[in-house]
Amino acid sequence: MTLEEPAPGSVRPGGRTARIRAAVLRTAGDLLAERGFATLDLAEIAAAAGVGKTTVYRRWGTPAGLVADLLDDMAEQSLPRTDTGSLRGDLTANARLVAKTLTDRRQSRLFAAVIAAATGDPVTSAALRRFYDVRLTEWAPCVEDAIARGEAPAGTDPRAVLSAVSAPLYYRLLASGDPIDEAAADTAARAALDAVAAGTFVTRQAADA
Amino acid sequence: MTLEEPAPGSVRPGGRTARIRAAVLRTAGDLLAERGFATLDLAEIAAAAGVGKTTVYRRWGTPAGLVADLLDDMAEQSLPRTDTGSLRGDLTANARLVAKTLTDRRQSRLFAAVIAAATGDPVTSAALRRFYDVRLTEWAPCVEDAIARGEAPAGTDPRAVLSAVSAPLYYRLLASGDPIDEAAADTAARAALDAVAAGTFVTRQAADA
Repeated sequence: MTLEEPAPGSVRPGGRTARIRAAVLRTAGDLLAERGFATLDLAEIAAAAGVGKTTVYRRWGTPAGLVADLLDDMAEQSLPRTDTGSLRGDLTANARLVAKTLTDRRQSRLFAAVIAAATGDPVTSAALRRFYDVRLTEWAPCVEDAIARGEAPAGTDPRAVLSAVSAPLYYRLLASGDPIDEAAADTAARAALDAVAAGTFVTRQAADA
Repeated sequence: MTLEEPAPGSVRPGGRTARIRAAVLRTAGDLLAERGFATLDLAEIAAAAGVGKTTVYRRWGTPAGLVADLLDDMAEQSLPRTDTGSLRGDLTANARLVAKTLTDRRQSRLFAAVIAAATGDPVTSAALRRFYDVRLTEWAPCVEDAIARGEAPAGTDPRAVLSAVSAPLYYRLLASGDPIDEAAADTAARAALDAVAAGTFVTRQAADA
């Protein structure tokens, strides 16, 4: 039985479509993590996912279209922000979550593959920007709450703070190759907090107000 | 006349080999920047560089081998560190240099292409690590001099400081897509300085001593 032939009575509205999408995205993610973007093939994914080739071509069109949908799905599935009650706690939790993702065997290869794909393809690139936009926006309340609690200067830019936490870990993954561990995560969070405390992430508009 | 047939009398020891290498690496860099790593083809590079195909295959073997040599050449060619007399000045100069590289049309595409290639190829990955190692080591005296001048705490890790300056700019290029400009460069330098001042980049060994 394939995913396109569910057991009688098991089909609810959207169920079959959602199951097909989940199977295809899971397979695409596995293959991206395993072999990267260059050899991604829709017919192979369809066969491995147990879905008709025509369905996959009609719905996703190209490997880049499929990777874009995978990124949108990752953004939808992403965990809500942590709320520990302090900016230090929240940023440390964020840094450790990023470090965990970038050291997980499947996830780290998947991220490296989609980032690599985005460098050469505008559809993937736009989807990657959307993904980081969702993540950065989702965690912004950490900084907004810290401002409200008086832990961060008014006008501190949440996006700059959260980018500062993630950036050193991505730099290790993609550029220097230095190890990504809890110490690296905690240093990234502490360095971001130091810059917050110094007012370095206060936007010019706020500083001028 | 091809590069392999220099004008009589113009050949000095190493001259012909060096000219061939320069032409091949320049062409490889152009094609990488233009189309990325996936379609890099040694025969096409040889033809475009005016060098015999056999020479290119014998010397570089594979596209990954050629990209590795390009990265080694980029490391050799890289400019020495700036010495402005202050850590703030040096790190700002470093950040602006990185921002300039990552916004230059050819250079930004070239870096994105080799970083993308490194995610899927161990030879390229090792060469990329060597490249960043050279850059980070070359700029380390900024931090060592700052420690000697009392501008940074003893035990501050130069590699951590310089990675912190570059990382937010690479994160913009490869992940968030946020603009890379002088303001972003200056904020990256300031944030790194804030963390230096707070002692966040002091290594544990130094802190324990």
